[in-house]
Amino acid sequence: MTDSQKAVEYVRANRERFLNELKELVAIPSISTLDENKSDVQRGAEWVAAQLRAIGMDNVKIMPTALHPVVYGEWMGAGKSAPTVMIYGHYDVQPVDPLELWTSDPFKAEVRGDYLFARGTSDMKGQVVASIKAVEAIMKTDGKLPVNIKWLVEGEEEIGSEHLGDFIKKNKDLLAADFCLNPDAGMIASDKPTITTGLRGLAYFELRVFGPDKDLHSGLFGGTIHNPAQALIELIAGMHDKNGKIILPGFYDKVRKLSKKEREDFKRLPTTNKELIKMTGVPALWGEPQFIPAERTGARPTLEVNGLLSGFTGQGSKTVLPAWAMAKISCRLVPDQTPEQTEKQLRAYLKKNAPKTIRWELTNLHNAGAALVETDSAGVKALAKALETVWGKRPYFKREGGSIGSVVLLQKYVGADSLLTGFGLPDDNVHSPNERLHLPTWYKGIEAFTHFFYNF
Amino acid sequence: MTDSQKAVEYVRANRERFLNELKELVAIPSISTLDENKSDVQRGAEWVAAQLRAIGMDNVKIMPTALHPVVYGEWMGAGKSAPTVMIYGHYDVQPVDPLELWTSDPFKAEVRGDYLFARGTSDMKGQVVASIKAVEAIMKTDGKLPVNIKWLVEGEEEIGSEHLGDFIKKNKDLLAADFCLNPDAGMIASDKPTITTGLRGLAYFELRVFGPDKDLHSGLFGGTIHNPAQALIELIAGMHDKNGKIILPGFYDKVRKLSKKEREDFKRLPTTNKELIKMTGVPALWGEPQFIPAERTGARPTLEVNGLLSGFTGQGSKTVLPAWAMAKISCRLVPDQTPEQTEKQLRAYLKKNAPKTIRWELTNLHNAGAALVETDSAGVKALAKALETVWGKRPYFKREGGSIGSVVLLQKYVGADSLLTGFGLPDDNVHSPNERLHLPTWYKGIEAFTHFFYNF
Repeated sequence: MTDSQKAVEYVRANRERFLNELKELVAIPSISTLDENKSDVQRGAEWVAAQLRAIGMDNVKIMPTALHPVVYGEWMGAGKSAPTVMIYGHYDVQPVDPLELWTSDPFKAEVRGDYLFARGTSDMKGQVVASIKAVEAIMKTDGKLPVNIKWLVEGEEEIGSEHLGDFIKKNKDLLAADFCLNPDAGMIASDKPTITTGLRGLAYFELRVFGPDKDLHSGLFGGTIHNPAQALIELIAGMHDKNGKIILPGFYDKVRKLSKKEREDFKRLPTTNKELIKMTGVPALWGEPQFIPAERTGARPTLEVNGLLSGFTGQGSKTVLPAWAMAKISCRLVPDQTPEQTEKQLRAYLKKNAPKTIRWELTNLHNAGAALVETDSAGVKALAKALETVWGKRPYFKREGGSIGSVVLLQKYVGADSLLTGFGLPDDNVHSPNERLHLPTWYKGIEAFTHFFYNF
Repeated sequence: MTDSQKAVEYVRANRERFLNELKELVAIPSISTLDENKSDVQRGAEWVAAQLRAIGMDNVKIMPTALHPVVYGEWMGAGKSAPTVMIYGHYDVQPVDPLELWTSDPFKAEVRGDYLFARGTSDMKGQVVASIKAVEAIMKTDGKLPVNIKWLVEGEEEIGSEHLGDFIKKNKDLLAADFCLNPDAGMIASDKPTITTGLRGLAYFELRVFGPDKDLHSGLFGGTIHNPAQALIELIAGMHDKNGKIILPGFYDKVRKLSKKEREDFKRLPTTNKELIKMTGVPALWGEPQFIPAERTGARPTLEVNGLLSGFTGQGSKTVLPAWAMAKISCRLVPDQTPEQTEKQLRAYLKKNAPKTIRWELTNLHNAGAALVETDSAGVKALAKALETVWGKRPYFKREGGSIGSVVLLQKYVGADSLLTGFGLPDDNVHSPNERLHLPTWYKGIEAFTHFFYNF
């Protein structure tokens, strides 16, 4: 029996205990966005630190940030010639409202069928526990690891990894690593192991248009005062052409063209248009016609209206000509676009197109860079092989439409690419009521991570 | 001393009491659109009825409608050879939000300088009290009136006189009158007495656009699901051309062309573009370039956005792709447009232009016809003479951009033209925070109404 086989046997023998330990972690309501849960978030960090110590990690510590702490730990016994793998995770979770839509208590994990139901089971306490248990299996059966590892488990992912940038910048020597295993990206389907190779960035704005200095009577003034809601609408409408293409000046200049190989990878992804329609409830899909949906969300930028507010929005009718109108607008960005360029382009568009009959103000609320990962690195190869060993098929390579703060930060300050994977499924109800984890997939995932460390 | 002089002396001697009685009426928050104020609206009706009884009116009654009641009263002692003048008013008011922009309590009238500040002071409780006090002055000094009068004081003007049509139709014999004095139209400036000869109509809609069945993550779905806020914006943007012209199919077909004489009347009106800009605080005026502002608001139709709501509108950023988006949209109409035609045109536009990637729903929230009044009638002449007696100059004849539901209904069911006048000023902040009434003008107005009844 090889070392990896021994470790996998250990995983299989300890499934029930692993599940119970995951139940312990999800029982801690570590909601990072709520002040009243601050001590719960701290308890989440303590639980993770205790586990790392128990499986033989060194230098385990709970390191403060300006809000919620980061858990660090390491095992550097593989020597200088072996690679150093960082393992990323987050122990914080999303809020649980609306509580009345949960079938069982969100912080009292319940097994129903093949699923474990509770907040954080999929996103991502289950993934954190999976990586801890894979390392435990190797340490307990082999007494050592084939690679050096460093743990970075944060408590602010669900609030945009607000202080993680400062933390990584301050601790870049401590965190030095060749690459980072990040199991926060999930998989396409339970029979389709997945590696995510790209993430979109984000540039988020609030645009306000001001007209008269107070709401006016639309009868008395309508027709001779530019309605700011109308002006806002015309400005935003002018940002797309009829095919959904964004026409801010220079918006697509830095967007990388997709290679034939990349388009083939996208085409191989299994989600059908019909499934997307069913999943979202829309009458039909939308977007740039020359790209398929997976390309549109993975490799094409967007300009999205996230919120609108102006004038009278209550029941019934009120004939106001509003004093102002507001839109939340955000762009999802792809390599090599940057939030800074995007802001410049948006301002240039507004300067050129805003009529002199109104005033406007643009505020940049949040930025995140886009990321693409090299697919022929040793790390990606080791991960792909591990997934294939367990699932019996080559993994799918996809790109994710959202942003993961740590990925850009680790590239920027540590020079480490992230290996984005994980064992969450698209219908796990993450960020929603009745979040769940598919247990057969989770057990496979622990085995895959066990193999991964032996693939160097 | 003539009878009218005696009555005017009475008005001058009782100014302070009149003001206190107006303060009583504005203290009643008779907001007709809000369910929670229903009993306050009833109290408003009771206050008016009590006043009518106190000044010697007969047959005073609070008559129910399907929502808020109408106050009726009459004095028919002038005999069959004298004309019967209806006096119209409304005792309901607009909501007061945003409350934080009011300098003083909207329902606790406060005198500051020449103004009385409170909701309803100008629109139109002040005007209702002015007409009651003019009649009181004549009754108390002369014991009788030169004309027969009938009062029609409704409680639903601010919600589009929803049930007034039914009421007038049912009670057309009771309401039979030669014409109607309606002081809800205001004046151009405190030194420029005004008679309004035209009103715009109104067709008010709520347009909802539906996309996915719940808010989606804009990263995971943005680019392949049509954002309903974006779709709504594109639909509304397409309703105007670049010069502010409305491009619903057939929208201008029934709009009457202005005659040379009419354009001269408009040109005589004193408000300059500079004054309009100062009054509203906008950087520049807007509208159809071939018409002057008074024509745009008096004789040209509009399509206005009165409210917008979609997605996340709180502080900061939330990356949702909203499930739906809503706009309140209304058209101001001019003779011979009708709300029914407008709804058809709007539906035709939406059917033609709404993309298949979303669903839409249009609700007609309320309608009012446009009106033009004969300018050489006995009523208009009596009113013009009364205004000239007090202000020392011929009144200005203008058209109003707003709608007054009663005007069209009284023309239709009773055959009575309305004499539109009043003593509200353009900068009274009607429908806005810090609504106010210019007291010197109001006192003059009471005197003008006193003269009016003697001019037959």
